[in-house]
Amino acid sequence: MPRERRPQSRRPAVDDGRARRRSVVEQVADRLTVAELDERGLLQRIFPRLGTARAAAVPVGPGDDAAVVAAPDGRTVVSIDTLVEDHDFRLRWPGGYRTTGFDVGWKCAAQNLSDVNAMGAEATSLVVSLTLPGGTEVAWVEDLADGLRAALDELGAPRCAVVGGDLGKGPALVVTAAVTGDLGGRAPVLRSGARDGDVLAVTGSPGQAAAGLALLESNHAYDGLPAPLKDLADAQSRPVPPLALGPLAARVGAHAMMDVSDGLVRDAGRLAAASGVTIELDSAALLPFARSLRAAAELAGADPLAWVLGGGEDHGLLAAFGPDSALPDGFTAVGRVYDGDGQVTVDGASPGAAGWDHFAG
Amino acid sequence: MPRERRPQSRRPAVDDGRARRRSVVEQVADRLTVAELDERGLLQRIFPRLGTARAAAVPVGPGDDAAVVAAPDGRTVVSIDTLVEDHDFRLRWPGGYRTTGFDVGWKCAAQNLSDVNAMGAEATSLVVSLTLPGGTEVAWVEDLADGLRAALDELGAPRCAVVGGDLGKGPALVVTAAVTGDLGGRAPVLRSGARDGDVLAVTGSPGQAAAGLALLESNHAYDGLPAPLKDLADAQSRPVPPLALGPLAARVGAHAMMDVSDGLVRDAGRLAAASGVTIELDSAALLPFARSLRAAAELAGADPLAWVLGGGEDHGLLAAFGPDSALPDGFTAVGRVYDGDGQVTVDGASPGAAGWDHFAG
Repeated sequence: MPRERRPQSRRPAVDDGRARRRSVVEQVADRLTVAELDERGLLQRIFPRLGTARAAAVPVGPGDDAAVVAAPDGRTVVSIDTLVEDHDFRLRWPGGYRTTGFDVGWKCAAQNLSDVNAMGAEATSLVVSLTLPGGTEVAWVEDLADGLRAALDELGAPRCAVVGGDLGKGPALVVTAAVTGDLGGRAPVLRSGARDGDVLAVTGSPGQAAAGLALLESNHAYDGLPAPLKDLADAQSRPVPPLALGPLAARVGAHAMMDVSDGLVRDAGRLAAASGVTIELDSAALLPFARSLRAAAELAGADPLAWVLGGGEDHGLLAAFGPDSALPDGFTAVGRVYDGDGQVTVDGASPGAAGWDHFAG
Repeated sequence: MPRERRPQSRRPAVDDGRARRRSVVEQVADRLTVAELDERGLLQRIFPRLGTARAAAVPVGPGDDAAVVAAPDGRTVVSIDTLVEDHDFRLRWPGGYRTTGFDVGWKCAAQNLSDVNAMGAEATSLVVSLTLPGGTEVAWVEDLADGLRAALDELGAPRCAVVGGDLGKGPALVVTAAVTGDLGGRAPVLRSGARDGDVLAVTGSPGQAAAGLALLESNHAYDGLPAPLKDLADAQSRPVPPLALGPLAARVGAHAMMDVSDGLVRDAGRLAAASGVTIELDSAALLPFARSLRAAAELAGADPLAWVLGGGEDHGLLAAFGPDSALPDGFTAVGRVYDGDGQVTVDGASPGAAGWDHFAG
């Protein structure tokens, strides 16, 4: 995981006004709820924060019935992803961490950008739909806009901007974004291209977001966590998809690719099924990831290898490369591809038998 | 409004299985809820109904992290729109009408297709995100898929298909779609191009969806409504954007265009503000629309001209044409454009003064 890109603090890196000493008028304004503004009033507060004008790839930005986005090679990658309160995040976790609007905006952008990355493409636009309970504070929504923008800036999506959206009321926070992307003339890297003999590789350190989820769901106070464990919790709240590596893998000829959003074994199984192959994961390659989660696992009373094998939401990449390709920097080999019928094994056995105790005990 | 394209019955035109005599197994299967299926199981029921394979414009359809859609002129139109239960529709209206999954799928597609139409473009793909309460019946979701597909077929979007989506649980039904579109080499028609001397024109008969909403919200039983009033209620549940007319208006050189989703006066005000002009609506041109709603207005105790001026969700087009252009078939002149500052008047007066009693009394 490119640690240098991880946002360094829980406060947004962009100036959201909180860094300044705030006037009483500003503080009162912050307690405004969305029920007190019409759609136009809310949009007027959001759009200036998005910096949409910067994106040269956008011939027509927000303000019309639709935007117009450049698609230089005559194709557009497109995907959609949703975050729902109490299903994909909690506004307040048992350990006391309060999910900020910034977190939700960041994660919404990150998971959409990751889908484009997994095709080997670069993101060119986001459109965002917000369903908001009437009591949502306007400041929370502004913070969400800041999180969207910060994710585009800090994750490395310089050609992408928020070009439009939709706002409405509802009984819970539901944040949906759709993303477009540009393949730059390359073929998209699909799930279905893995072949017998390929090397299976991942980016980052799978299991971190799952470890973070366990910490957030635990009764251990977030504020009291040691910094490395706070970083894991932050990996859950603000995932860091490696946006340079998707196009790089495509350029060096990756045979198959997807992002790891639902867990290594489950997602490898999807890739195996789409490609009509069997994937054999190598525990020796996975144990270093598990070892790095040992402190969190001890605190949470969990099996770190289960996080590595089953944890989702890291939004790293899983890719198959030909046996003679050098793996690009940022990828770690974790297994091999064989002719088969969609199975995933660990050292040749069912992943259900794989556990930290078994391997490390 | 192209009446011949209006779906002719409340039952879907495509075979959703209900037209057949159903086996006991099928009837029990219909009572399955989404809580009883995993995402994969639900997707396996939805995707075959969407007929995605038919769309030649889709190089990569569902099944990968993102789809790839053709963008032949090097640009993509993109927009997003959401429907929320109890805000954008009721599952059961006071008059007894039960909103079907088919209705919601249709309306979701229609409002997104309308945004592309309003730019003068043709839709090339939809991605759809469904947030579903656990108790939602699987059959309702299948019906929604049928409604999406029927809207693409019957509204006339032959190049468009559902190419991907996202499924998740939530406390209320939230249906979001994002749409891409192809301008076919033409310039997009923006809200900002209206000029002094232009003729302002609309498609269809504004106010029908608002009349339909009033009927659905009234205590008059839907099943007892005369056929013409049922048609109005259906215009609310299943709007019919005139998809041939957006690209046609663009080809003949419309100066400005948008869809009428929030009401004629409000949307004309947006067009006027974006263009820096004043729009003068002509009551003589609007009265025939109001007259056609007289029976509904009497039943609902409402002012039909208020529906024409203020009613939203018809998803017809509002466009400005140069004074020397012949209006394309399907457009009706309703006013003129003058130099100004974003005002909208009716016969030179504030629209607030305009009412059926005033003009028709």
